[in-house]
Amino acid sequence: MDSLETLIKLMSKLPGLGPRSARRLALHLLKKKDVLMIPLGEQMLATAENIKTCTTCGNLGLNDPCIICTDPKRDATKICIVEDVDDLWAMERTNAYKGRYHVTGGTLSALDGIRPEDLKIPQLLTRVLNKASPVSEVILALSATVDGQATGFYIGDQLKDTPVSVSRLAQGIPIGGELDYLDDGTLTLALQSRQNI
Amino acid sequence: MDSLETLIKLMSKLPGLGPRSARRLALHLLKKKDVLMIPLGEQMLATAENIKTCTTCGNLGLNDPCIICTDPKRDATKICIVEDVDDLWAMERTNAYKGRYHVTGGTLSALDGIRPEDLKIPQLLTRVLNKASPVSEVILALSATVDGQATGFYIGDQLKDTPVSVSRLAQGIPIGGELDYLDDGTLTLALQSRQNI
Repeated sequence: MDSLETLIKLMSKLPGLGPRSARRLALHLLKKKDVLMIPLGEQMLATAENIKTCTTCGNLGLNDPCIICTDPKRDATKICIVEDVDDLWAMERTNAYKGRYHVTGGTLSALDGIRPEDLKIPQLLTRVLNKASPVSEVILALSATVDGQATGFYIGDQLKDTPVSVSRLAQGIPIGGELDYLDDGTLTLALQSRQNI
Repeated sequence: MDSLETLIKLMSKLPGLGPRSARRLALHLLKKKDVLMIPLGEQMLATAENIKTCTTCGNLGLNDPCIICTDPKRDATKICIVEDVDDLWAMERTNAYKGRYHVTGGTLSALDGIRPEDLKIPQLLTRVLNKASPVSEVILALSATVDGQATGFYIGDQLKDTPVSVSRLAQGIPIGGELDYLDDGTLTLALQSRQNI
């Protein structure tokens, strides 16, 4: 049963799957060989071959540069900084942003020794300061963690002597959030940056 | 992003995955394209092509009949009845059983309208009553659920006028428990103290 054991071993490397759940998944696939296993295997190979990382923004797609970077309807003077492609997709699902993106590939981290050169931050600065396509605003959509905020401050600091304005996503109470369940930090922040109505 | 969306849609059909976790999994695969995504896709196609269902016992393997059915060291006079292939694997992991198997493909169920003919029970009876290779004992290793026990009683009833003795795994299997989730020790104990019915 070599072929099956190799499959189970590979599957147990997927995030959230251990050897037991990988075994169950492999059996499930074998039972649905024609409707799920073969199409999924083929699709994985096809996607692996087709999908490219956009060398401009870091998005994943069928083209390089990606459809967002080449869309003339999108505002090229705004760049939204995200950590990862799934954050970019989350922003896109809102339909509230019509500018372009830049995926850093992570956050700076003193603890893990991640420096600006390890991320796509030099490419971001080159892109922002490129006189051929002027950028007026950089929007930081980074995680509200210590590392995410440090990364935001670093980018802000690098751009402080330029005409580019730097903003970040507002912090506060999430929609539907109950005050009782919010952490003290969020509540303090929401109080400090309260808005007149 | 057609290719990627097709992949995510297929992945969200896997048990335990919704659209959100399928998206995360697809991104994880794309990041590990060469070490995980391509090998996994290839392995899935190879396994789908290689793996056969044994026409004798219902086990999955590279050969038909499977290595268990053709192993001369295994006791051909004993047949262990299991519901599914993962139960067969669970039995094999105990290393406590050296006979052969028969996978029914489920249990009888009045509620779901599953009759003996919908399972591999007629094939089991043919196999057990085949005079060319006499069977002396049938061991029921079915789930300790109402349907599992009903299936066991049905098989026992069908064989009651034959010289074949029918036993079942000893109580010790927790009520409602699924074989695949049992620890090996409990399963070994239950096999050793199997009781005639």
